[in-house]
Amino acid sequence: MSRYDSQDIIFALATPWGQSGLALIRISGAGCRQALAPFFSRPAALEEAANATLVHGYLHDEEKRRIDEVVLAINSEGHGYTAEEAIEISCHGSVAVIQATLALLGRIGMRSAEAGEFTFRAFIHGRMDLTQAEAVEELVGSVSQRSRSLSLSRLEGRLRERIDELKDRLLTLLAGVEVQLDYSEDEVDEYRFPEETLSALITSIASLADSYQIGRLYKQGAKVVLAGATNVGKSSLFNLLLKEERSIVSPYRGTTRDYIEADLEVGGIPIRLYDTAGLRESEDLVEREGIVRTERLIGEADLVIHLVDSTDLGHIPVEDERTIVVYNKSDLVRVGMDKLAISAQSGEGVARLLSVVEERLKRSLPAGGDEELVIAGERQWQLLEGAKSALLRARELVQGADVLDVVAVELAQALGNLGELTGAVRSDDILERIFSGFCVGK
Amino acid sequence: MSRYDSQDIIFALATPWGQSGLALIRISGAGCRQALAPFFSRPAALEEAANATLVHGYLHDEEKRRIDEVVLAINSEGHGYTAEEAIEISCHGSVAVIQATLALLGRIGMRSAEAGEFTFRAFIHGRMDLTQAEAVEELVGSVSQRSRSLSLSRLEGRLRERIDELKDRLLTLLAGVEVQLDYSEDEVDEYRFPEETLSALITSIASLADSYQIGRLYKQGAKVVLAGATNVGKSSLFNLLLKEERSIVSPYRGTTRDYIEADLEVGGIPIRLYDTAGLRESEDLVEREGIVRTERLIGEADLVIHLVDSTDLGHIPVEDERTIVVYNKSDLVRVGMDKLAISAQSGEGVARLLSVVEERLKRSLPAGGDEELVIAGERQWQLLEGAKSALLRARELVQGADVLDVVAVELAQALGNLGELTGAVRSDDILERIFSGFCVGK
Repeated sequence: MSRYDSQDIIFALATPWGQSGLALIRISGAGCRQALAPFFSRPAALEEAANATLVHGYLHDEEKRRIDEVVLAINSEGHGYTAEEAIEISCHGSVAVIQATLALLGRIGMRSAEAGEFTFRAFIHGRMDLTQAEAVEELVGSVSQRSRSLSLSRLEGRLRERIDELKDRLLTLLAGVEVQLDYSEDEVDEYRFPEETLSALITSIASLADSYQIGRLYKQGAKVVLAGATNVGKSSLFNLLLKEERSIVSPYRGTTRDYIEADLEVGGIPIRLYDTAGLRESEDLVEREGIVRTERLIGEADLVIHLVDSTDLGHIPVEDERTIVVYNKSDLVRVGMDKLAISAQSGEGVARLLSVVEERLKRSLPAGGDEELVIAGERQWQLLEGAKSALLRARELVQGADVLDVVAVELAQALGNLGELTGAVRSDDILERIFSGFCVGK
Repeated sequence: MSRYDSQDIIFALATPWGQSGLALIRISGAGCRQALAPFFSRPAALEEAANATLVHGYLHDEEKRRIDEVVLAINSEGHGYTAEEAIEISCHGSVAVIQATLALLGRIGMRSAEAGEFTFRAFIHGRMDLTQAEAVEELVGSVSQRSRSLSLSRLEGRLRERIDELKDRLLTLLAGVEVQLDYSEDEVDEYRFPEETLSALITSIASLADSYQIGRLYKQGAKVVLAGATNVGKSSLFNLLLKEERSIVSPYRGTTRDYIEADLEVGGIPIRLYDTAGLRESEDLVEREGIVRTERLIGEADLVIHLVDSTDLGHIPVEDERTIVVYNKSDLVRVGMDKLAISAQSGEGVARLLSVVEERLKRSLPAGGDEELVIAGERQWQLLEGAKSALLRARELVQGADVLDVVAVELAQALGNLGELTGAVRSDDILERIFSGFCVGK
């Protein structure tokens, strides 16, 4: 890890860039207090501060010109986020203050942190494993409460514990095989490979791998598209769902020329909702372009709410896995009980529509299991799938009465995958790929 | 101050809304630790924490569902920004975490802070006077280093000290007059009003009032417009000044259809620079609209840099207070020494142009005086002007040998103005007007 692996004192703005009451600049690395002290109004207070205490004073530059009144939060080595000697500067949230402070830190020999470098140091110093490090970035990026709670649970180490438990079971299995390999066949009693133990392990790993669908749904969310002919009330429903006027609703056909999007949350799932141009033939070039985009959106959607006008049915689309047909204007005409009817005018039926949407999006999720323990991220999923494949191959080898040493190779492969997942087994390349995807300041 | 004046525990997000490494939520008010403790994983550690210490743990909701891993910075009553019992929550900078935390604080009986309410409490508890409170908001809003340093100097109390000194001098004067009024004329020796003392005081106050021009220039900055016929090199100069490609430069006339603006800093003054459409007759409607806007911009500008082409002089505009004529393309043709010549191609002469711009913008500023002590804001300026007017009237009355009691009224008026400036004399209306202009979280 050329860019990360160093003894440098690093710093970064940890709060968003822009004007606000306060801003936080974090610093980490051995000697950072001594390095900052000459530029602080109370150098002795800074250098002598106990772990986990606050020191109030002024930052100033090389010419003793004051930069800002600040509060420093101090952590000694072995404590705090990175487990290194660290300072968090809480300063006024002014662009000029932030610029002047960051410039000072750069001039006095500290280095601007790489993306994820604080978390990398926490990992290197054993404060967290890789699943926890990845959870930090997921937690920061979480927009739905469900995604927040799932990533927090991983940050607390619940996924690490589960992986460690799987590794233990696998290690016991492998140890049994190794014992056989260390002795010639006639030295030990007849050995029966514990196939049920292996199968149970495969089931556990497969179930954890499958939880990726849950993690992905709550993290990335789903695309839901409102489709249907012009003037069926798509924009009215869109507005109703957002509970605010976002789309221009008019009684004329073809008002929504392009699509409009907005975010909402349904059953904990972050949803991006698209209101589209009505699907009809049009002479208008701008509108025609809108319809092309609508068709593209429908192609990419996780779910399409196809709205029809109960007072003017026309063509009824076919329901399928990805399409819900909804009958609007139920306030004007009676709709069969077997149909999903709403009134975008009165709001009737909309709560039911939302629960159908939630049920549809969750339909493909694996049932049961530990709902709070869910993996997230392609990397974790691929490693678990890799471990599962190796164990499946091992089971085939055992069933085919193959020699034990090829079985041992597969078991070791699976163990390696699990080790990579937590970072017990690691390569610089992998670490760099993981941490460089983080935001700076984390 | 109906909205502010209360014993409520208040809270606010003090960092900008959005995703980042960390976010800060501040809480202030007696009993806030006890109120938060049931929702913190280490209630005793929170309640017993010493002043100015950090407590690490987890926030959870009423159902013990964890919200986030946090670090709490604790201040006891009498300490910290507001001088009240206070907590700063440092949490992960996730939108979902921030939402969940703010929602929890609202549910457990705390109140979302009004704009400026933390600073209001600091003021109420005597941690700062009004000039310092106003400096907080100015510091947060400062974008140039000069504006930052001027507002920091006020935050440190330098303006308050100066006002206090002026008040002392005025009070001595007033006391002398009051003594005369308390005794009948024949009881005391003949009294001579100290006119020189009054005049010196008027000069001091006037000079402080005049410093508003300095404060305003460094805070609000100046509008500088690049004008001139098409193809004289305005966009090239604009880009050169910004040291980056922001405007489309092409060798064809009339490329910049509308204006483009960008911010830079010249001699500490924040400048908004406008690159405009060339001033020429045009058949093109879009371009014509651009020219109308250019003329409006020129009308509003603090300074116009009128660029002419040295190789094709044509009409030369008249220099005036607001206009600098600059001869471009000095690399192609010799320009008289008395003229400001540049080459937007080679960069020659641009440094000199910038110093001319700085000199022009600063030309109207009052000279000398304590450069670091500058007032900011309409309110401060008006109160000082009010005090000055009252003292000028007092001097006229004295010179006109008027009775002393009307002189005393004017002196008291001036004293009242100075008191209002620091908040020693105050009304709820004025306080509300000042603090409600702050950002929330300050």
